[in-house]
Amino acid sequence: MKPYIEMTKDELAAEHKALSKEYEKYLAMNLSLDMSRGKPCKEQLDLSMGMMDVLNSGVDLRCEDGTDCRNYGCLDGIPEAKQLLGDMMENNPNNIIIYGNSSLNVMYDTVARAMTHGIMGSKPWCRLDKVKFLCPVPGYDRHFAITEYFGIEMIPVPMSPTGPDMDMVEELVSSDPAIKGIWCVPKYSNPSGYSYSDETVRRFARLRPAATDFRIFWDNAYGIHHLYDKEQDYLIEILAECKRAGNPDLVYKFASTSKITFPGSGIACLATSLNNLEDIKKQLKNQTIGHDKVNQLRHIRYFKDIHGMMEHMRKHASIIRPKFEMVEDVLEKNLGGLGIGSWTKPKGGYFISFDSMEGCAKEIVLRAKKAGVVMTGAGATWPYGKDPKDSNIRIAPTFPPVEELEVAAKLFVLCVKLVSTEKLLEVQNEDSSD
Amino acid sequence: MKPYIEMTKDELAAEHKALSKEYEKYLAMNLSLDMSRGKPCKEQLDLSMGMMDVLNSGVDLRCEDGTDCRNYGCLDGIPEAKQLLGDMMENNPNNIIIYGNSSLNVMYDTVARAMTHGIMGSKPWCRLDKVKFLCPVPGYDRHFAITEYFGIEMIPVPMSPTGPDMDMVEELVSSDPAIKGIWCVPKYSNPSGYSYSDETVRRFARLRPAATDFRIFWDNAYGIHHLYDKEQDYLIEILAECKRAGNPDLVYKFASTSKITFPGSGIACLATSLNNLEDIKKQLKNQTIGHDKVNQLRHIRYFKDIHGMMEHMRKHASIIRPKFEMVEDVLEKNLGGLGIGSWTKPKGGYFISFDSMEGCAKEIVLRAKKAGVVMTGAGATWPYGKDPKDSNIRIAPTFPPVEELEVAAKLFVLCVKLVSTEKLLEVQNEDSSD
Repeated sequence: MKPYIEMTKDELAAEHKALSKEYEKYLAMNLSLDMSRGKPCKEQLDLSMGMMDVLNSGVDLRCEDGTDCRNYGCLDGIPEAKQLLGDMMENNPNNIIIYGNSSLNVMYDTVARAMTHGIMGSKPWCRLDKVKFLCPVPGYDRHFAITEYFGIEMIPVPMSPTGPDMDMVEELVSSDPAIKGIWCVPKYSNPSGYSYSDETVRRFARLRPAATDFRIFWDNAYGIHHLYDKEQDYLIEILAECKRAGNPDLVYKFASTSKITFPGSGIACLATSLNNLEDIKKQLKNQTIGHDKVNQLRHIRYFKDIHGMMEHMRKHASIIRPKFEMVEDVLEKNLGGLGIGSWTKPKGGYFISFDSMEGCAKEIVLRAKKAGVVMTGAGATWPYGKDPKDSNIRIAPTFPPVEELEVAAKLFVLCVKLVSTEKLLEVQNEDSSD
Repeated sequence: MKPYIEMTKDELAAEHKALSKEYEKYLAMNLSLDMSRGKPCKEQLDLSMGMMDVLNSGVDLRCEDGTDCRNYGCLDGIPEAKQLLGDMMENNPNNIIIYGNSSLNVMYDTVARAMTHGIMGSKPWCRLDKVKFLCPVPGYDRHFAITEYFGIEMIPVPMSPTGPDMDMVEELVSSDPAIKGIWCVPKYSNPSGYSYSDETVRRFARLRPAATDFRIFWDNAYGIHHLYDKEQDYLIEILAECKRAGNPDLVYKFASTSKITFPGSGIACLATSLNNLEDIKKQLKNQTIGHDKVNQLRHIRYFKDIHGMMEHMRKHASIIRPKFEMVEDVLEKNLGGLGIGSWTKPKGGYFISFDSMEGCAKEIVLRAKKAGVVMTGAGATWPYGKDPKDSNIRIAPTFPPVEELEVAAKLFVLCVKLVSTEKLLEVQNEDSSD
């Protein structure tokens, strides 16, 4: 089929009629499918069921330094958890705090602490007239929700396959002391799946922020979440690079096992410089006596070490890789060459980022919803939910069973085509009315 | 032995000499004992080991509404957890949010939220010149640490066996709009073990705060932590009483299973009015996707219902009751009638509150420490760690094995006597130097 843009009005109308008829069929199917969130599917969760067996009433629940994990204490995590998650994050265990079940919670708390107490002695952000964050777009809606909740002004920065526009980041960060942070998902980023290039990481580590309390919020959510065995993205480790660049305190790095074991029942962690850790612990000791050490121990006893964890991740990949491939295949077969959409082909992570023609995303998502397929809301990948071009849509292929996913993907491409023909017809009508 | 106060200088000197000799013996024993924190002992932790068996790889981890507890979601807790903890707290499950592993964390977050966002539309506390909290004393050091961390001015209010001085509470709360909260441990309070009387609870529910965003922080930490089967304290349920009094939004009530199952690996909860819940959830949804539902399920499957939990608490009581009784016995036998100290005899909770002669507490704790017995720091039961009379000491009998506890208790009373004789001799010397 030729690109829609090259079609005549009559051709477009005929195409639209055929598409509408097909859409009617979907409506009649009473679908109820969900491609909206980055949730592991049942088979992925089943992978970790063995973790439910490693601790039982016959097992000694002391960790290697003799601490009884069943009792109070140990603010920053048991040593073996720091070791394993240190290996996972590529950081020294001494630079790590093990938290509770949610890295989002850690990020939220990190912003909240800066609001009320500043960072390493700086003025609390709540006392400032204006606080701003840079937000690479498209990005993660839950990041943006945190900064929006705290009244922090968000400035979009375009993403590319090598990472955020670093010219823009450097210019803004070095000139505006109100800019206190930037949200980053550096590897297999949400939603594009792009990984930051070596140059991007190097430039991040060499930022010269106007604000001494500027921090990079480096959400390493998909650090080991590869889809392929051989084709994997490697990043320069940011803490080490910051240290080498003479900027040791510039970054907070977050991760969790949410998409390794059980989302909501995993363990989260933060890695940063010793100065930052000291600053954080001053607050943390008032907030809690300690996080769930039994669950830390459960993870350790299950994986044993980073190799065990990596083998486990291969099993995840073998479940979700076919889903990504299938969606990419449906996209290519149905939209390839039509000129009405482009999409990413990530080597890891949980999402595919789709860009429709301008002004079509909301309507595409609405049509899919009407036919029973829930997508992430159009605009969600932008601060304040406002995508100025109304074109980006996040596709989350992991959760639905592959058969359902195929139906959902086919409906999705149909909606893209349907809405695109309508848009083009609209444009042609406007043109002809001149 | 006659009261120390009635002794002559020579009698006191002789007594001091004998006590010093005995103290020397303890020094030679190289003790290393801990009576400092309200931690369950090993035998108590062992009680809950069965909880490690209820979930295994053969068990369905869906909760009763079909939610897969292994995946994301369910911001406020699974229904059966709300039911069980509702029964535990004597509140409607609809009034409850189930949190993570720490009620301290929930309290901290509650204050932090008020700092940055106010309460139900009020001005954020961080924007106010002055925020004050009332602090019944002696009280819980970790409560005071939270308000101190946020720069909230703490005003001590004396505790009595019926609760805080309600004349003072009413007067202050109704006249000063800067007073935004009061820390309460209403049942088997920390450290006195006192439970609020019916009149106290009624008066709390009928407070007429000058500040619309005043809240009672009702830390129901020891709601079912009885020491005796028959002699138990019953409180009027505060949420219900507030509702009846026309003050439905006046209270946040906190609890957890930390001292029921495993501290640090339990589940925490908050009960409050639907208005307050709505206000809280607006924040909570930005902070996390949900708490650990697998651990919620683990607790439910283990206890089944509130009766199971109460039977479990009887086992706790049978382990720690003898410890309380032994300490009380040592106190009575060694200090009874001497006029140099008084102490509480709680029917539940985790502490005994001891009051020495004025100006002696720090020195008593120091002497005990020198001989290898760690007590809670003197002053810790007061805001800013400053006990103006330097007399209150918190005794935590639960953690050490009973044999060690006996040694520690005997050393403690020895230190009380030693420091008291020194204090009285000092006074007599001052008198005779006139």
